[in-house]
Amino acid sequence: MTMMTGAQYEESLRKMNFKVYLMGEEVKNPVDHPMIRPSVNSVKMTYDLAHDPQYQQLMTAVSHLTGETVNRFCHLHQNTEDLVKKVKMQRLLGQKTASCFQRCVGMDAINAVDSVTFEMDQKLGTEYHERFTRFLRKMQQEDWTVDGAMTDPKGDRSKAPHQQDDPDLFVRVVEKRDDGIVVRGAKCHQTGALNSHWVLVMPTIAMGPEDADYAVSFVAPADAEGIIYIYGRQSCDTRKMEPGADIDLGNSQFGGQEVLMVFDDLFIPWENVLMCGETEFSGMLVERFAGYHRQSYGGCKSGVGDVLIGAAALAAEYNGADKASHIKDKLIEMVHLNETLYACGIACSAEGHRTASGTYLIDLLLANVCKQNVTRFPYEIARLAEDIAGGMMVTQPSQQDFEHPVAGKFVAKYFRGTDKAPAESRMRIMRLIENLTLGTAAVGYRTESMHGAGSPQAQRVMIARQGNIEGKKKLAKAIAHIQE
Amino acid sequence: MTMMTGAQYEESLRKMNFKVYLMGEEVKNPVDHPMIRPSVNSVKMTYDLAHDPQYQQLMTAVSHLTGETVNRFCHLHQNTEDLVKKVKMQRLLGQKTASCFQRCVGMDAINAVDSVTFEMDQKLGTEYHERFTRFLRKMQQEDWTVDGAMTDPKGDRSKAPHQQDDPDLFVRVVEKRDDGIVVRGAKCHQTGALNSHWVLVMPTIAMGPEDADYAVSFVAPADAEGIIYIYGRQSCDTRKMEPGADIDLGNSQFGGQEVLMVFDDLFIPWENVLMCGETEFSGMLVERFAGYHRQSYGGCKSGVGDVLIGAAALAAEYNGADKASHIKDKLIEMVHLNETLYACGIACSAEGHRTASGTYLIDLLLANVCKQNVTRFPYEIARLAEDIAGGMMVTQPSQQDFEHPVAGKFVAKYFRGTDKAPAESRMRIMRLIENLTLGTAAVGYRTESMHGAGSPQAQRVMIARQGNIEGKKKLAKAIAHIQE
Amino acid sequence: MTMMTGAQYEESLRKMNFKVYLMGEEVKNPVDHPMIRPSVNSVKMTYDLAHDPQYQQLMTAVSHLTGETVNRFCHLHQNTEDLVKKVKMQRLLGQKTASCFQRCVGMDAINAVDSVTFEMDQKLGTEYHERFTRFLRKMQQEDWTVDGAMTDPKGDRSKAPHQQDDPDLFVRVVEKRDDGIVVRGAKCHQTGALNSHWVLVMPTIAMGPEDADYAVSFVAPADAEGIIYIYGRQSCDTRKMEPGADIDLGNSQFGGQEVLMVFDDLFIPWENVLMCGETEFSGMLVERFAGYHRQSYGGCKSGVGDVLIGAAALAAEYNGADKASHIKDKLIEMVHLNETLYACGIACSAEGHRTASGTYLIDLLLANVCKQNVTRFPYEIARLAEDIAGGMMVTQPSQQDFEHPVAGKFVAKYFRGTDKAPAESRMRIMRLIENLTLGTAAVGYRTESMHGAGSPQAQRVMIARQGNIEGKKKLAKAIAHIQE
Amino acid sequence: MTMMTGAQYEESLRKMNFKVYLMGEEVKNPVDHPMIRPSVNSVKMTYDLAHDPQYQQLMTAVSHLTGETVNRFCHLHQNTEDLVKKVKMQRLLGQKTASCFQRCVGMDAINAVDSVTFEMDQKLGTEYHERFTRFLRKMQQEDWTVDGAMTDPKGDRSKAPHQQDDPDLFVRVVEKRDDGIVVRGAKCHQTGALNSHWVLVMPTIAMGPEDADYAVSFVAPADAEGIIYIYGRQSCDTRKMEPGADIDLGNSQFGGQEVLMVFDDLFIPWENVLMCGETEFSGMLVERFAGYHRQSYGGCKSGVGDVLIGAAALAAEYNGADKASHIKDKLIEMVHLNETLYACGIACSAEGHRTASGTYLIDLLLANVCKQNVTRFPYEIARLAEDIAGGMMVTQPSQQDFEHPVAGKFVAKYFRGTDKAPAESRMRIMRLIENLTLGTAAVGYRTESMHGAGSPQAQRVMIARQGNIEGKKKLAKAIAHIQE
Repeated sequence: MTMMTGAQYEESLRKMNFKVYLMGEEVKNPVDHPMIRPSVNSVKMTYDLAHDPQYQQLMTAVSHLTGETVNRFCHLHQNTEDLVKKVKMQRLLGQKTASCFQRCVGMDAINAVDSVTFEMDQKLGTEYHERFTRFLRKMQQEDWTVDGAMTDPKGDRSKAPHQQDDPDLFVRVVEKRDDGIVVRGAKCHQTGALNSHWVLVMPTIAMGPEDADYAVSFVAPADAEGIIYIYGRQSCDTRKMEPGADIDLGNSQFGGQEVLMVFDDLFIPWENVLMCGETEFSGMLVERFAGYHRQSYGGCKSGVGDVLIGAAALAAEYNGADKASHIKDKLIEMVHLNETLYACGIACSAEGHRTASGTYLIDLLLANVCKQNVTRFPYEIARLAEDIAGGMMVTQPSQQDFEHPVAGKFVAKYFRGTDKAPAESRMRIMRLIENLTLGTAAVGYRTESMHGAGSPQAQRVMIARQGNIEGKKKLAKAIAHIQE
Repeated sequence: MTMMTGAQYEESLRKMNFKVYLMGEEVKNPVDHPMIRPSVNSVKMTYDLAHDPQYQQLMTAVSHLTGETVNRFCHLHQNTEDLVKKVKMQRLLGQKTASCFQRCVGMDAINAVDSVTFEMDQKLGTEYHERFTRFLRKMQQEDWTVDGAMTDPKGDRSKAPHQQDDPDLFVRVVEKRDDGIVVRGAKCHQTGALNSHWVLVMPTIAMGPEDADYAVSFVAPADAEGIIYIYGRQSCDTRKMEPGADIDLGNSQFGGQEVLMVFDDLFIPWENVLMCGETEFSGMLVERFAGYHRQSYGGCKSGVGDVLIGAAALAAEYNGADKASHIKDKLIEMVHLNETLYACGIACSAEGHRTASGTYLIDLLLANVCKQNVTRFPYEIARLAEDIAGGMMVTQPSQQDFEHPVAGKFVAKYFRGTDKAPAESRMRIMRLIENLTLGTAAVGYRTESMHGAGSPQAQRVMIARQGNIEGKKKLAKAIAHIQE
Repeated sequence: MTMMTGAQYEESLRKMNFKVYLMGEEVKNPVDHPMIRPSVNSVKMTYDLAHDPQYQQLMTAVSHLTGETVNRFCHLHQNTEDLVKKVKMQRLLGQKTASCFQRCVGMDAINAVDSVTFEMDQKLGTEYHERFTRFLRKMQQEDWTVDGAMTDPKGDRSKAPHQQDDPDLFVRVVEKRDDGIVVRGAKCHQTGALNSHWVLVMPTIAMGPEDADYAVSFVAPADAEGIIYIYGRQSCDTRKMEPGADIDLGNSQFGGQEVLMVFDDLFIPWENVLMCGETEFSGMLVERFAGYHRQSYGGCKSGVGDVLIGAAALAAEYNGADKASHIKDKLIEMVHLNETLYACGIACSAEGHRTASGTYLIDLLLANVCKQNVTRFPYEIARLAEDIAGGMMVTQPSQQDFEHPVAGKFVAKYFRGTDKAPAESRMRIMRLIENLTLGTAAVGYRTESMHGAGSPQAQRVMIARQGNIEGKKKLAKAIAHIQE
Repeated sequence: MTMMTGAQYEESLRKMNFKVYLMGEEVKNPVDHPMIRPSVNSVKMTYDLAHDPQYQQLMTAVSHLTGETVNRFCHLHQNTEDLVKKVKMQRLLGQKTASCFQRCVGMDAINAVDSVTFEMDQKLGTEYHERFTRFLRKMQQEDWTVDGAMTDPKGDRSKAPHQQDDPDLFVRVVEKRDDGIVVRGAKCHQTGALNSHWVLVMPTIAMGPEDADYAVSFVAPADAEGIIYIYGRQSCDTRKMEPGADIDLGNSQFGGQEVLMVFDDLFIPWENVLMCGETEFSGMLVERFAGYHRQSYGGCKSGVGDVLIGAAALAAEYNGADKASHIKDKLIEMVHLNETLYACGIACSAEGHRTASGTYLIDLLLANVCKQNVTRFPYEIARLAEDIAGGMMVTQPSQQDFEHPVAGKFVAKYFRGTDKAPAESRMRIMRLIENLTLGTAAVGYRTESMHGAGSPQAQRVMIARQGNIEGKKKLAKAIAHIQE
């Protein structure tokens, strides 16, 4: 097997043995839990589309290791074309799921770890890259979804890892044994972790020598003993538990997922350890992973944006307002902002370059610029969608009222729009807009846009570092004829 | 009795006989329904604070009809000081409830109806103002909460009321009888209707002669036979139904409420009719009510904004990030935007003027400018709050997990912040921010800011009309020495 | 005499004996120098309008010292109505001159110095307030224009006054004598200084004990021996020197003025000294003066904005584009932003309060919010004006070409607009827009909006200080039920 | 000769016989006129850098016609790499000149005319492409600068060309003869026309059959008899005429140029006619030229932006304010916005595609998105530069005062900054910022950013057309499960 179908993926997940808590209960079969299920469907789409001839050019790639066709999510970028196709694949999946499809973190993690382990080995004589390549070969062969896990709880953000009151607030090595290491700590906000076969753990910040125990990277089966998941609440999450839930979900089929992943003294054999104490490389790994992941958002968020723009356009049409010039202008603005995000994703890809290992890296400055825009424009696109939709999006009655013998006839009568817009269509599109701006998908479209791949200030630090202000000063001095 | 206490208000509501549907079921006791209860508490606050000596100067006024002290929500503004105090009262209540407290629509409606009925009578020889004054005297005496009902379903927005496929898509008179009229139709997005004693219905747009049946205004008991309520869903509304619901609500005590209010051939005796066919006055009534209500938002939204700014500042403190210059700068920006809203509310009040009836009207241009800013700045304040809060706000586990014997210890361990920020405090503040930006209160803080008192384009039309572009052209010609 | 006419003002200026350098030459008669003249005309307007019955209510006030009618620019604000009228007077003058009319700094300075000297005397037993009141009485009687001088050169901004390499980079007392003091230093960016009869000098920052020599305030005749003026260049300033200059000026009649004012060991008798070493009061004086001056911009800049909006509307009309919905929408946006500035000016005035001396002070928080908006919105209004105007505003030929026998016919033929827009009208309005966005008036409308009365960061510091973040945290804790 | 040096270019210009009016006089030697000279220098840079080995990869290309190395400005883009290099070349030249270097319009015109004439010939059997190719071969061989002339005066913008009162308000064919055509009319805002060897004229809008006389494209020597130039005024233009002009220019060496170009019954032989009556192709030609030119701005404006950012950073350093966090943050924001422009330029290039003639076209949607951002971000970058610079930029005295024996010592004393910032350096950098935000270069950096290659609304129309709103509606319906 090289590429699973969606059905095969689903089956493979069912065989996993996760330890999960959700709403105060242990969940034995997460795949079929109604609150979790839509997030499985989103990942599943990454498998199904890879078998659709229409999309194969984007969804698949030829492995540089084996020459076999693999899902692009398991691929190392071999050139700038690969980087560009990655972004286009992400936009496509955003359009098809209107959600976070979760599989990008693993793709971004393997690409970052590849070049960094290569350069570590070159400088330090370690053997991390070989270990990693063995893992990657297996990952491609089995078509695994991998969780790239970076963000630690961090506790008091004004303190370094080793300064925290509780030493476990960053993931750390608590024991080094002959056969491997024992790690303790947790990773927060883990997108899609429960839908993954393996997890690739990375440190979360640049570190100094005193933080050596915290400079740790490794892979582990996602259901390894010692890993505990606690499921994160999303806005409107329990609507999925309501009987007959459909209209009120907005997007009944797809969703995202975030969990707290706890390492309760997890054992990792040496062959799965990819960094252990090399603090001078932790910053580089963070920078590269974050760079790839900031590029990603130029793709996925513009895909989700496409759906939101379409929904707003439909709402206007149903309201009989689509001919109003201010409505048309707002839709243009939404498209403009959305395409600016996409343009930044494309640009940092087209301007990518080869690293020592052969894997291509995006342009770091432009990738950070891309993400910085992502922390702003989806919010404005959402605001404009809410403007166009009208208040009904947050005041319309429940699906149950719509289906009630007495109340339902009033709902049908008074929530219709133009003669082509029955109440149900209108209610569905309002709920989709609600879903993306306030509901479960707002977690992905708003908060993840803000904080995923690093909060806005993290990009600003990188822009300052990469922006070559000194070079710009020289340009200005030359023009102004200032000799110093 | 002139001013009820909160407890008396609550009792008075229990005696009402509403017909209400919610989540597919008829609700017999809305006051104590967990999904409705917080909205009752918000209105209750408007009664309780009127008895608090600290706030009486803002919360009460002396009736120009009786000379008695009345709740300011039942008062007609007698001077610009009243207009300014109104805004300050609203900011106070926004601070105390972090919600829409719902009682403003009635206050804004009585002030608008007073001057318009006065001017109608002057011009047409009708007797609407006398009827209205009788109602107002009773309203002040009984300290009623009144729902000001304006927004019709509208169907196809490109069509006038009489052009709609279904003639009931705007409220209309279906029968005129000797003793009164029969009305049919509905009002949407009715804020606080179920928490009201009476409803004051107004037309929703300027109308031409063909729309005469739609130019209708009246008062009715909120539980009159023929009025049916269908409760609107809010984001995260059912969290209030969860056992032990507290932390996950963010704001467990207060909330807002919107309903669809259906007039199923409701009979109104003539003494309660305040407009019936006078289409030439419908536009004026809309303009004045909307003007007052656009002023209101300069008060209430800045009050809610205060809470959100405080919550963001606490989140930063708990995260150990409050010393970072970018965090301090974001808080300053939030304050700046919030105070700009307030300044516009104050300005349109201080620049108010007397109408023919003696009631003071705000400056219409500045009130529209105020509301236009309200359609923008709360969104940016919310975005900045989400930036400061961090991703935990949408990924933290449920209260049930926090209280679970196994999962709970991990939650407590890994979600703590600085040494002064236990996980529970942090979770509470994250949930409050979620509540205001994505949850039940986002309906008030975001969508109502956008669409309440008219959507953004409605203000732009008014700004165009009031902005005196022709006068400005003359100024420019004088400076440029253009004679024509 | 209590109120001069414009003509009398002009004559009074001619009698002054200024020492001025401009473009490398000493100017003997600044009043009639073509580059300076328009700035005289702007100040003159403050005298002429005070005699126009239509504007007297705004332009004049009754002196609290003498009961006589005085020009409002010489008045101490006795109530919030005075504060509001001040803003309205400024808007009026902005509309009439489309320029900085320069007389506000003196008005703002006397109001600040009044309450601060009063409180200094109360606390320290000094007699500054009595001296000041004597000066004020004379100023009102003679109807002087007074330059309020605050901004020092500052040298290295990271250093305090006493730390600078050159001790003169802040104005300081170099000698204390029996009969008075000798001061050295300079004040930069002095708006209208050359059009003033007297100058009122104030310190520019809060100071510590080591800066005692720099905590100095005094009044002096503007043409005192020891004061030297060096005239500042403005964009397009020399167009005023071109033969027959008219069209190309955009605003041929009015303008602003900034100078470097050097104190070359200037002697000040004690009776004119208003602060001398009381460092603990320098911060308060700066804060109050800046507060008043930040209020001012809510008036004058919205007045200038009115002219720019009118000019843009005319440009659209001449271009035949005034019916386009995007043009109408841009004009609405310009009005909206401009009125927001005005609203903030009104609000900080209406919320003013009495100080110990009886003079009314604006609300400091809202005045800083007002100015902060002034650092943004005029730029956006200008951008929109440039959008509406079209490129002709920067590519049209000179007036001389328009008047040239050969070239002129082509200019007239090809620069006409609609059939009601001859080339000359169009060129005039384009030049007016150029003047306000790029030319001499852009100095007032853009740069002064940014830096006058303190740069943006100065307002942010004040907003942080006045914004009561701690109080807001308490509100949030109450809602979230956090006990600590 | 294939590539001229700058000196050769300058000599070649001197041999031209232009008919030019400037400030009311005919100019016989435009190359050496002080107001024109800096614009010659900017174009000259495009010749000189092509001989600099460091930049040859960007500045030159291999002709697909001859296989010879040509200046990239004479090249047709053969692949997306060419499109990307074009943008990088433009950024480089923006950095080196801090001005509009004017040669892009010709490059963009030949690329557009190539594919459009090819497709015209294919469809209509005409022979325009062959004529064009002959011209192009000569242009490459002689290394000509070509003015691409599109914008007509337009008169009343609400009317089509044939509806104008004066039929000459769009360029038109007034006579068709056996040997050629006679054209009358004018082109406005012609960037660099006087620095060109030839002019390539194109129609300015999509046209209908009644506008056939206006659908005309041709090439002509720039100094042909019948072409008259009237030079456009820029803000601060005459500073270049001041004796010893240096500091006050900000950028003493480089500048831009715009003229009104009049065709006073100009004769064009048939071999130089490239469109004559084919109205159905005028829209396509405009769209493609505008598309290329909108791409261009992603390059040149980000290059100029680099200089402005550098200047602002220097101003902060000289002021001793470069360590302030708000200054650092503003510089980051400037870089962020500037790189977003560049990213859009790169993206529309990387996403380009081949046209029928073999020439590559940019992605039209992304090119319009690029330009739309250019109408906004340079204004904000300029605003931030003005914020950082401080008021001195518009109030500092003239160079003559700085050099004056008396005034100069005060200027030197009081305008110094930190101990490393003598007054002259500081004044120079302030003047450079003034030049870019208010002065001659503001014409290029602001107004041209706004209106060059089409005003903002023109891009919005294209974004609406290219944005595939219908496709987005389908995506939304699929997610919301709406069947219709």
